[in-house]
This record gives sequence, structure tokens and C-alpha cells, in this order.
Amino acid sequence: MKAVVAGWGMAKFGRRRATLRDLMSEALKSLFENTPNLSRDDVEGLVVSSNAPERSGQTNLASLASELINLENLKYITRTEIACASGHAAIRAAWFAISAGMIDSAIVLGVEKMWLPYPEAMLITDMEREWDFPQFWYGRAPSGFALCAQEHMKRYGTTREQLAMISVKNHGNALLNPYSQELRRRPKSVEDVLNSRPVSSPFNLYDCSARVDGASALLIVGEDVAKSYTDVPVYLLGSGQKAIGLSLSVMKSYADWHHLKAAALDAYRMAKIEPRDIDVAEVHDCFTIAEIIEYEELGFCKKGEGGRLVEEGQTFIDGDIPVNPRGGLIGCGHPVGATGVAQVVEILQQLRCEAGKRQIDGCEIGLAHTQGGIATTQSILILGVSVK
Amino acid sequence: MKAVVAGWGMAKFGRRRATLRDLMSEALKSLFENTPNLSRDDVEGLVVSSNAPERSGQTNLASLASELINLENLKYITRTEIACASGHAAIRAAWFAISAGMIDSAIVLGVEKMWLPYPEAMLITDMEREWDFPQFWYGRAPSGFALCAQEHMKRYGTTREQLAMISVKNHGNALLNPYSQELRRRPKSVEDVLNSRPVSSPFNLYDCSARVDGASALLIVGEDVAKSYTDVPVYLLGSGQKAIGLSLSVMKSYADWHHLKAAALDAYRMAKIEPRDIDVAEVHDCFTIAEIIEYEELGFCKKGEGGRLVEEGQTFIDGDIPVNPRGGLIGCGHPVGATGVAQVVEILQQLRCEAGKRQIDGCEIGLAHTQGGIATTQSILILGVSVK
Repeated sequence: MKAVVAGWGMAKFGRRRATLRDLMSEALKSLFENTPNLSRDDVEGLVVSSNAPERSGQTNLASLASELINLENLKYITRTEIACASGHAAIRAAWFAISAGMIDSAIVLGVEKMWLPYPEAMLITDMEREWDFPQFWYGRAPSGFALCAQEHMKRYGTTREQLAMISVKNHGNALLNPYSQELRRRPKSVEDVLNSRPVSSPFNLYDCSARVDGASALLIVGEDVAKSYTDVPVYLLGSGQKAIGLSLSVMKSYADWHHLKAAALDAYRMAKIEPRDIDVAEVHDCFTIAEIIEYEELGFCKKGEGGRLVEEGQTFIDGDIPVNPRGGLIGCGHPVGATGVAQVVEILQQLRCEAGKRQIDGCEIGLAHTQGGIATTQSILILGVSVK
Repeated sequence: MKAVVAGWGMAKFGRRRATLRDLMSEALKSLFENTPNLSRDDVEGLVVSSNAPERSGQTNLASLASELINLENLKYITRTEIACASGHAAIRAAWFAISAGMIDSAIVLGVEKMWLPYPEAMLITDMEREWDFPQFWYGRAPSGFALCAQEHMKRYGTTREQLAMISVKNHGNALLNPYSQELRRRPKSVEDVLNSRPVSSPFNLYDCSARVDGASALLIVGEDVAKSYTDVPVYLLGSGQKAIGLSLSVMKSYADWHHLKAAALDAYRMAKIEPRDIDVAEVHDCFTIAEIIEYEELGFCKKGEGGRLVEEGQTFIDGDIPVNPRGGLIGCGHPVGATGVAQVVEILQQLRCEAGKRQIDGCEIGLAHTQGGIATTQSILILGVSVK
């Protein structure tokens, strides 16, 4: 059975005065409001993506989510977690259960509460905990990805300005997205990025995604029942995932992410498409360099030419291959468990022509990419309005 | 594609001087030793079950697990979590991915580090965190299940001695299991249980499962490749899961777990069997009362007669319907994420006639049951040596 993404819900991202329960309720309410024919009795699966609700003291979050909507006919329920790639893992779990004929429908719910009043919460890490995290600054995300940036700049001549352009583009796109974090200040130019506070060389503040709260939801159903919920069935066409470990020491190169390339090839092969067929992409821009390396490994340009791709404006909304029209992690903020699900919300809206001011013309195939750790775990999903 | 459980690995349960990494390595090593034809290149999936590795500060545990065995051909990787039912969720995720044709094989790895030197770790709870946990003693597991015991005793006349017999049986069985916790002292009689330290009326110490460390692993593969790894293919035949929420207030009755009965019916229907076809069962005896209520809701006896079933000796290894020959949670200890996987290790050993001193004659069909929260989430798996 083919699986169709048939509905979406979003809670506003940001530094919210809201608990995990509040955030999940908000995204679920939005899903049911946006999907008028959806009844609670229809829902047979519930897969919750959350990286570390334990920072709020709460595990067993999927059971809590089931309480919020009182799903009587639930047959498959779990939380999935693989750091920043948790959202894709949840989508994959729901998809595979539908494809295996075990359930007809599932809600995928992504949520993260990042903005907590006690800094000890951040001692729970998705980096390697015994060695990298306590011993090294590069056990922290900014320093880890800074190594990637340094090596990429040295090897391929990527410039500081090209990095900054990712930030300008994504902050600009986020202004068009009603669910992004509030942008009280934002970089309007490369100079604004270069003048922002240094974080970890070469990154300044605006090269980094912000920790925010948020939630997001999808309805995924079997092809045969999809028409009850939507006139534009958006199919899950391809999937690729690779993991080479967790410690930073497993990375053979900081600038070349071969395992991302391999995951992308798996996804393209499964979807029976080529990179040039992609009309819109949401990629994991936790830091500006990440988006540039992803352009290359995903095949949007040749290796080493990612910086030029953004410099030429090709990944802006009006470019040849728009990337992160939603605003990405840098523009929207990064509530870890919610991010991967929110990416697919954006792809769904683009493919249904419901993206408002962010709408890209003629979208038929979209790609979403997330990663976990310092790029050690890679995940790709491909969606399309028709099956090849 | 039907899925076959084709290999097992275990780490010793107990208060271990071992980290999450150590425990996972031990179970994986055991799996590869017990499955001689298994090569790392064969493994396409890795699903890790762990309730709260965040107590050790570590999330993204599935990526760490992938590092331990350097799986080059991994295509599907995630952690699953739904409190004490996490292990079954991992088995289900691997099974469904295989059935959907996405992967041919997966390692399922359950692990928990419970024995930590700082009590703050236990502020991370799988009970409802905002209301039940801080406000009420019944937000703790012993008090919550004590309510179940009190109501069951009042309504059905279950006796204190019948509860104690569960403890005597499971502690006795655990003595025959080389992977159970070390039992320096154990109740040899009903009197020993009744004389142990009071915990939450009517429970004494020996009515409760102990928090221990542990890990467990399974190899699950598609039917067509199973013969490479095993001469006795053990099929995943049926699955049932229900969740009614997380707060204790969602329980309509403490003594009648209607949602467990409903989950069991789903599993029996899928496996095309009746309760009387079960030759061996591993059920979630977090507290003595739980096993008695489970007898009833799983259909091993009529409602209200669970106490009599154990009193008559029918659920002992030499009885009509042996339950928890492994020793259960009470005998083995309860490393949360590892428990559900370890149950299926036992069913596999019983069905393959590899259970040594615990072997039950003529096992063809086995059932495993876990639950999360105060019985609010229920999960059942049915396995068998032939497909009906």
C-alpha cells in the first residue's frame, strides 16, 4: 500500500510560555482544523517525534499525546528519537506500518520544549556523552559544524560571504512563514551577519539556528483512503537514511559527507528520480555551512560549488532550485523533534499550492533532509504529487 | 513479507558497573556470537529501545549503537520509546519495515541504565509529569499499582497470599536464568514475601520489580533469508497495542483493564489463534497484582480468577499455561528498555527448545505482553514456529 501525506498542523515556533502538553495540543488542534473530514475514530496510529522531552522531566510522551485526543481506535503508538532526525524517523515508522498493511492511518506529531528555565536541562545531549561532550568544545554543535566550515572553506574556497548569504536567504524566507519564530532583529544583508556576535569561528550568531519551542503534525494515510481527506494526494516516494555513529571521530572528512550522498542516492533510486527533478527542498541548515554541503551531497550542484549556488541566487524562492522556502532552521528556529515534521508540512503546502507568499510555481516533487549529531546521521524523504 | 525472529543476544541484568555503551556492546556481542552466520554487512536496520538514557545525559542512542558495530549498510535506524513498552515498539518498528519491503533485516537492541549515583535522574518520569508525579504518591509506580491491587482484592476476593505466590514463582524461575539479576536473598515462600519490608499497601518489597541495568538484542529478518541464520524460524504472528493516555485519571477501573483485553483480541485475531493455543507467556509483572490481572485480560482464565490460577500452580513452569519462565520483571529485574526485548528472547528460546532448565515441553506458540505507565498503555506480541 502506498502512503499519502493528507493533512498538516502547526504550532507557532518560538520562545513559548507553553509546556509540552500545550505545544502538542496546539499542533493537533491545527491538524484537525485543517483536515475537516478527519475524525478521531479514523486514526489508527500515533507516532510522536521528540528528541529530549526528558529535559522537562517527561518520558513516555506518546502516551501523553494519546490522552490529548482520546484516540479510541489506536493500534500502533510509539515515540521515535534519533536527535535532529527524529521527525523523519516518525514519518518513516508511520509510513512503513501503513505500507505493511498494519494500519490505515497515522498522526505524526513532532514536538520539542527547548526553552527551559534551568540550564542543567542542556546536560542531556545528543552528542556523544562520555568523551566528546565533556572533554571538547567541539562536542557542542556550533564548534562541531565550525570544523566543517573551516575545512570546506580551505578545500573548496567557500567564502565567509557565501555562508552569510544562507543566513540572509533563510531569515528572509522565514518572514513569509506565519509559524516561524518572531524575528525581532534579523540580518538583511551579508554585512549584518558578519557584524553579529562571534560564536565559533567562522560562525557568528546569525549563522546558527536558535533553540526554540515548537510542534508540528501530519496525517499520513493509505492511498485508498486518502481521497476522504485531500484532493491533492502527496505520496511518500523515497527514503534514504545512513548512520555512521555518534562520536565526531567517526567523520572521515568534515567537508565531504559521503554517507549523505549515499543516503540521497538510495532515496532518488527508490523514488525513481534524479536530483534535477526536485522542485523544492527543505534541508537541515542548523548552521550555514550545513546547507552548502547539503547542496553538494544532494546533487543540486557539483562538489565544492555549494557556495556559488547560493551566491548566484539559485536557491532563493525565485531561483532554479529553491531551498528552505519555509525559512529553514536558521529562520524558523529549531525545536528539534518538530523540525523534520515541519519540513514535510512545508513540502506538502508547496506541492498543494497552499504556501501563500512562499509559493513556488509548478512544484511536483519535493525533498526533505535532516541530520543528527555532528552530521553523523543523515535522513532524506522524497514526496511527489504523482507516483513514478 | 513475513518476519522471523532469527537470533538473540543478552547482557546480564543487575546493578552493573557498566555504562549504556558497555551494556549495548555486551548484548550485541552476545547476538553475534549466538548467530554465527550473521555478518555486519547483512544488517539493514537498527532499532534501539530505551526509555530514558537521558538519565545518563545521553539522547541519540541509536546513533551511538550504530557506532559500536559499524554497520555500513544501514538503511533504517531509530530509537523507539513508550516507557516500559519501548521494547515491543522497537520489535514492531523493525517488523513493519521488513513487512513493507523496506529492509531485509534488523537488529533490535533494548537497553537501560537504571542504577545511577544521582537520585535526580529519577525526576525524569514515565508517569504524567505535570500533575500526577509531583502531586500524588500514586504518581509513583508502586502506589499506582497498589490501587489496582486494592480494588482487585475488594471486587474479586483476590488474597494477599495469591499476590505473594506470583513473587515466589517468578523469583524461583529467575534462579534458572543465567541473565537474571543476582538474587542474594529471595522469597522461598509466601511467608517470606509477607514478611518483607512494606512498600505501598498491600505490596511488600518482594511484590515489586527492581530497577536494574541491562540490555537485550534480537535479529529480525524477512522470511526468505531466515534460513541463513536459523533452522527453527520463529514467526511474528500477531500484534496488539492500545493506549488510553498517561494520567492515572484515564483509568475507568483499576481492576479491569478493558484496553488490555481489546489489545489481546486484536493480537489473537491477527495470529488466528485463541488464548488456549498459547504454550508459554511472558507478561509484565512490574508488581504481583499486574500478572494476576493480565491472566484474566489475556484470557488465560475468567475475570476475577487470576489469583486462583497461580494458587493452583497452573502458571508455574510445569503447569498448564506457564507464565514468566524467564523470571519476569520481579525475578530478573526491570531494565525498562531492555525488558520487552528480553521477553521475546525467552519466547524464542522456548520455541527453539534452547531454554535449558527452564524449557517447557512442546512449545509452538508464545505470547509476550508489556505495558507502560500505570497500565495505561498495553502491548502484545504473538510468536509461533509455524504460520497459520
